[in-house]
Amino acid sequence: MSRTDFDILVVGGGPGGYVAALRASQLGLSVGLVEAQHLGGICLNWGCIPTKALLRASEINHLLHDLGPYGFKADNVSFDFTKVVARSRAVSKQLSSGVAHLLKKAKVPVFDGYGKLDGVTPDGKRKILVTQDKNAPVTLTAKHVILATGARARALPGIEPDGKLIWSYREALVPDAMPARLLVIGSGAIGTEFASFYRNMGADVTLVEVAPRILPVEDEEISALAQKAFEKQGMKVLTNAKIGAFKKTEQDVTVPVEVNGKIQSFTVDRVISAVGIVGNVENLGLEGTKIKVERTHVVTDALCRTGEPGVYAIGDLAGAPWLAHKASHEAVMCVEAIAGKTVHPIDITKIPGCTYCRPQIASVGYTEARAKEAGYKVRVGKFPLIANGKAIAMGETEGFIKTVFDDKTGELLGAHMIGAEVTEMIQGYVIARTGELTEAELAETIFPHPTISESMHEAVLAAYGGALHF
Amino acid sequence: MSRTDFDILVVGGGPGGYVAALRASQLGLSVGLVEAQHLGGICLNWGCIPTKALLRASEINHLLHDLGPYGFKADNVSFDFTKVVARSRAVSKQLSSGVAHLLKKAKVPVFDGYGKLDGVTPDGKRKILVTQDKNAPVTLTAKHVILATGARARALPGIEPDGKLIWSYREALVPDAMPARLLVIGSGAIGTEFASFYRNMGADVTLVEVAPRILPVEDEEISALAQKAFEKQGMKVLTNAKIGAFKKTEQDVTVPVEVNGKIQSFTVDRVISAVGIVGNVENLGLEGTKIKVERTHVVTDALCRTGEPGVYAIGDLAGAPWLAHKASHEAVMCVEAIAGKTVHPIDITKIPGCTYCRPQIASVGYTEARAKEAGYKVRVGKFPLIANGKAIAMGETEGFIKTVFDDKTGELLGAHMIGAEVTEMIQGYVIARTGELTEAELAETIFPHPTISESMHEAVLAAYGGALHF
Repeated sequence: MSRTDFDILVVGGGPGGYVAALRASQLGLSVGLVEAQHLGGICLNWGCIPTKALLRASEINHLLHDLGPYGFKADNVSFDFTKVVARSRAVSKQLSSGVAHLLKKAKVPVFDGYGKLDGVTPDGKRKILVTQDKNAPVTLTAKHVILATGARARALPGIEPDGKLIWSYREALVPDAMPARLLVIGSGAIGTEFASFYRNMGADVTLVEVAPRILPVEDEEISALAQKAFEKQGMKVLTNAKIGAFKKTEQDVTVPVEVNGKIQSFTVDRVISAVGIVGNVENLGLEGTKIKVERTHVVTDALCRTGEPGVYAIGDLAGAPWLAHKASHEAVMCVEAIAGKTVHPIDITKIPGCTYCRPQIASVGYTEARAKEAGYKVRVGKFPLIANGKAIAMGETEGFIKTVFDDKTGELLGAHMIGAEVTEMIQGYVIARTGELTEAELAETIFPHPTISESMHEAVLAAYGGALHF
Repeated sequence: MSRTDFDILVVGGGPGGYVAALRASQLGLSVGLVEAQHLGGICLNWGCIPTKALLRASEINHLLHDLGPYGFKADNVSFDFTKVVARSRAVSKQLSSGVAHLLKKAKVPVFDGYGKLDGVTPDGKRKILVTQDKNAPVTLTAKHVILATGARARALPGIEPDGKLIWSYREALVPDAMPARLLVIGSGAIGTEFASFYRNMGADVTLVEVAPRILPVEDEEISALAQKAFEKQGMKVLTNAKIGAFKKTEQDVTVPVEVNGKIQSFTVDRVISAVGIVGNVENLGLEGTKIKVERTHVVTDALCRTGEPGVYAIGDLAGAPWLAHKASHEAVMCVEAIAGKTVHPIDITKIPGCTYCRPQIASVGYTEARAKEAGYKVRVGKFPLIANGKAIAMGETEGFIKTVFDDKTGELLGAHMIGAEVTEMIQGYVIARTGELTEAELAETIFPHPTISESMHEAVLAAYGGALHF
């Protein structure tokens, strides 16, 4: 008979959950994982990973329609949309199987079902009831329970995804055909990535944002250039925009959009609703416990502890920022703390954020505005990619890099990037922020030539009047 | 009449020279620049930059012949080689004009001609004689002279470039037609990049290296995977290989290559000789001065000072590593020292190196072997890109990342990368080495998901038994 009692039980098999299980196993703790659907969670199956596969396709499509300047020609350029989507699904499946393999190698038993807190044993262990439609319920016990059930798309009244004309990210990932006309509601990372994907695949795309600017969590200058770039690509972008009541027919939707008191109507084939996410706090047995839920998220302290001793929450379930790398980092921290290691609470100003649209966007730490709000006297540096040799050689000159320094100490407070490859480059600034490096140390760093990353150096030098190539 | 006396005179307008001039101007020093040919030097005109434009074309060509897996199709894929080369030249021209513009904006006069040390004035200033065929010689004076005349291709006896069948990098950058069969001698960065470019454009390429492995300065495991990858692409790679006497006809060359005592003959359309470089130490007026030349390079101390007071040498002229970013860093350091600022001598273990072949290669610091030779007890981490989600989503799973740590202190001694985008990623490790970060700080760093750069994190964790995804 298989084991039912553990040091740690993890509920939820997304990037927070499975990483917690793997780390616990590495540290010699007995650990079990409860997951009802897909190992890898939304991230691997319906989020980060399959979207990147799609966005790769849209990059290729863009390039195939811009071969001339590079000296290339091709006739009858086309794509099979079914194959593009199938490749994205295959990538997800490969990674989800990979997670299953890693857990197996780490000897972590995976319990197929929904996990729910179900009281405490006489000797003080947590009980978890695992239920699955087709199987009899099972009760597991553990000294520590890590809740990691993630989040799902928020459904706003009136624009609830219907699986046909109104999509959430789920349907947007597995369309049966390319919509000719698409309206995307919400310009956070998810909405923006889908808008970019479908536009670059040839759809007529309108991106609608209620805030005064798209990508509202990014630095203002980043939002401004992103909007300009999207519009140049033929996307329609509406900000300060309110959505009215939809009118649906069998095959299309008419969406009234109010901007500055003026209403325009858009008739489109599909709508993607990307208006935020809500935590999966239901059916976890939180009722009657000391675990607090606020705005659909479990309240935790800096070490992921909930109000109940021995119960932790990590990742999207525990609230913003809703990022897989925040979840997996919390997972490691939480497990290491349980194992008695010294850990450091997460500093959200050291968590990078990436949006994989074209041009790419990446940032870490304070925006210029936030730094000023926080009372810093700042020094700001900016360097445009048009002044970078490698960007010119690649034909990828759209974008810039902006740094924000504390004038008093020279500490790098934040960095904001838009342009080619920036999602792979931002880690340099994250390392700098984590190591609390100052402008002097960054100025001293020798960036390789010719790379776009040299612009990271120039953006540092620019904050102190020393940019060389601009 | 224009100014002829300066605080600093820079001889040579490559990346070392023009950066020295720009930095001097920023610091309020009067500065003049002497350049006989192209502003930007070899790097912008005949090196780093035009090769990157060519390599971009070869990446595109590769992708165009591998569209199927992504769901795309195209007929009659072709390139106009003249246009590919013309684009590369246009990129160089744009950047060289950019440097002229930067110097103009900084009010740095540029003297067209060859500069030569020509004694000292009664008040102790250095005299520089500038000569140009078409103009009368001019004498300039300055308190400080920075020599930055760079280097050129080494011509080995018997395989001297002849501009027709035997190319140096110069001819290889401006071919009038694609050679069907090509033999490249020397597998350093230059030889390897040309081999990769021509192979990916469709040429039949043989890469010949006298050392036991290609890219001999890289970590052994990097060399091994690079060779495997090149061979998979259809390149022929010969190591421990000695070149015999060439037999030329009007249109081809027969090259005998000896490996382990066995001689094979290759008849090819063109040969590229990439067997190292020699410093441009001639006609600088070094004779009779205290400036020493060793192995074609000017001998300098850690602050770029030569044996003559007030005379400095930077960049390729001052010896290895022959990298533009080493030259420009020395330029800034040298000028800042002249301006009385506190500077830090360059630590070559903090200078990254990149090779822009497919797959890309980038590294910084100690290889595993060098670290052991230097007496370190090392910890080594390795992470394959096949285990990285973004790499899988991009279809770019070839490669790995390797870290070398000092077991005693946890300091990152070196990092070695092969795979997609690694030339843009290496800066993170360079920042870590410059900030002297340890494995604990790197482990603590939150890398964004999903990126290939997460493998940099995993390679750190792997060195301490904590890799999560492998």
